[in-house]
Amino acid sequence: MADFTVHILGCGSALPTTRHLASSQVVDLRDKLYMIDCGEGTQLQMRRMRIKFARLNHVFISHLHGDHCFGLPGLVSTLGMLGRNGELWIHGPAAVSEYVDSFLRLFCQGLPFTVRFNPVDASTYGLVMEDRSVSVYSIPLKHRIPCCGYLFVEKQKEPHIIREMVDFYQVPVRELQHIKQGADFVTPDGRVIPNSYLTRPAAPARKFAYCSDTAYFPKMVPYLEGVDLLYHEATFLECDAARARETAHSTARQAATIAKAAGVKKLVVGHYSARYEELAPLKQEADAVFPGTLLAFEGMKLSL
Amino acid sequence: MADFTVHILGCGSALPTTRHLASSQVVDLRDKLYMIDCGEGTQLQMRRMRIKFARLNHVFISHLHGDHCFGLPGLVSTLGMLGRNGELWIHGPAAVSEYVDSFLRLFCQGLPFTVRFNPVDASTYGLVMEDRSVSVYSIPLKHRIPCCGYLFVEKQKEPHIIREMVDFYQVPVRELQHIKQGADFVTPDGRVIPNSYLTRPAAPARKFAYCSDTAYFPKMVPYLEGVDLLYHEATFLECDAARARETAHSTARQAATIAKAAGVKKLVVGHYSARYEELAPLKQEADAVFPGTLLAFEGMKLSL
Repeated sequence: MADFTVHILGCGSALPTTRHLASSQVVDLRDKLYMIDCGEGTQLQMRRMRIKFARLNHVFISHLHGDHCFGLPGLVSTLGMLGRNGELWIHGPAAVSEYVDSFLRLFCQGLPFTVRFNPVDASTYGLVMEDRSVSVYSIPLKHRIPCCGYLFVEKQKEPHIIREMVDFYQVPVRELQHIKQGADFVTPDGRVIPNSYLTRPAAPARKFAYCSDTAYFPKMVPYLEGVDLLYHEATFLECDAARARETAHSTARQAATIAKAAGVKKLVVGHYSARYEELAPLKQEADAVFPGTLLAFEGMKLSL
Repeated sequence: MADFTVHILGCGSALPTTRHLASSQVVDLRDKLYMIDCGEGTQLQMRRMRIKFARLNHVFISHLHGDHCFGLPGLVSTLGMLGRNGELWIHGPAAVSEYVDSFLRLFCQGLPFTVRFNPVDASTYGLVMEDRSVSVYSIPLKHRIPCCGYLFVEKQKEPHIIREMVDFYQVPVRELQHIKQGADFVTPDGRVIPNSYLTRPAAPARKFAYCSDTAYFPKMVPYLEGVDLLYHEATFLECDAARARETAHSTARQAATIAKAAGVKKLVVGHYSARYEELAPLKQEADAVFPGTLLAFEGMKLSL
């Protein structure tokens, strides 16, 4: 099965610590890279994790808070110095556009490639971008400013040809593409071989959802149903639930409650508050609701 | 003698590598901190080096290139989250002001302290700022955009009282402050004791100069005469001198030539091009002109 991997570049929150970097992830799907959020230091973390700059064409920004986008100017400048010429797309709530415009104007005169901005309506679920490998949808979140998560849905692959059956019915090579697209095969003597004899359905399309930053927000659940992997922020522990409410963040327990309600296959939490030196209590709290919750860490690779 | 230390936070150049961080230094003088340049990742490097955010009141930016200022928005945001309330001064060429205004507007609404911008005329030598500990002067450099270095001159301390002489002449305590300021002492019977009998001059004021980024520019030499420590960029080796000229940077040999002409006491070079995995050849080249040249590294502390 083609690769579908999520790389965690940073999973800290607003205050920097020596333990965690600001938010950034890279989805690696069929050899193309899609970045989600780009906190300060992201380009350096890409270098450390040996993630190739050249394969990145899309950056999705959740919201206009510094710990999710202060790495963008450096990343874009570096891509320019590396001689990139293909377009780079930045997707994000409308407010992000002003930020992008301002650093392009001040720092990126003569950039050898074009940066295109795609405004995302953070208040609704909707298609943000699609290519041959993936469709990306916005997921409305609840934060202090417009903010959305992103759902990555792998494009359904064509069914597999069953080699033995194709050989048995002597299907000519020129017919194989039609059969992959669902056609039956008609033998030279007029006999119809149903498509289902000749093909095996492809593996179901895999899904990854990123939900950060957000208060506890059960309205997102329908969009998360059946995802293979959910990254949900868990900035706080329940003992700091009041602080979570004030700042429109979630507790580990709340993240797990969302994951359970949506029936996701795997949950990974991150965006840890700087106040917690130890993360085991966050895992304990989430595990009580959603057993097997994973704690994100810098350098983590999650394969779907 | 009171502390005068230069901390090297980052000494790489525009392209990030896993070996070097973007430009930033902190001058620690009499327990106050003065930052020079603030590349991406500076705030995290401060944490790693345990440099106290609260003691920082002035940031000096050399020029509006990303590797010298992309860390500013994160630093200012973090100071806000830490509850700072004293003013923060940012000094730099006029163009830096637009950058500061734009990130303050987009990211720092409700900041609990005031950021003040002081425009520096990068084309001339002049006083940029002074307080009780230091005077900071701009040094004109030659780069692709307006860019200046900074000269830190410690405030001359008062002369030392010679305890034995003061006791001998029975100088009353109330006279000591006048004597420190240069007054002679007149004994009750009218005899004049010259100031020079009673005091010993303070150690000469120490000086540190930061010159980055710049092409080879001998016009800066008069401003550097007698400095205790010069940090001069040495982006390239002589074998890449053409590239140095094109990009308005210096070679290690050129940095050493400036240091020698100015008769500085110590030279430290940095702002290394990403192309050099090994720095020994840079040192070799500089040493041939200015023996004992130091290579900057992240975490280096230089005491004057």
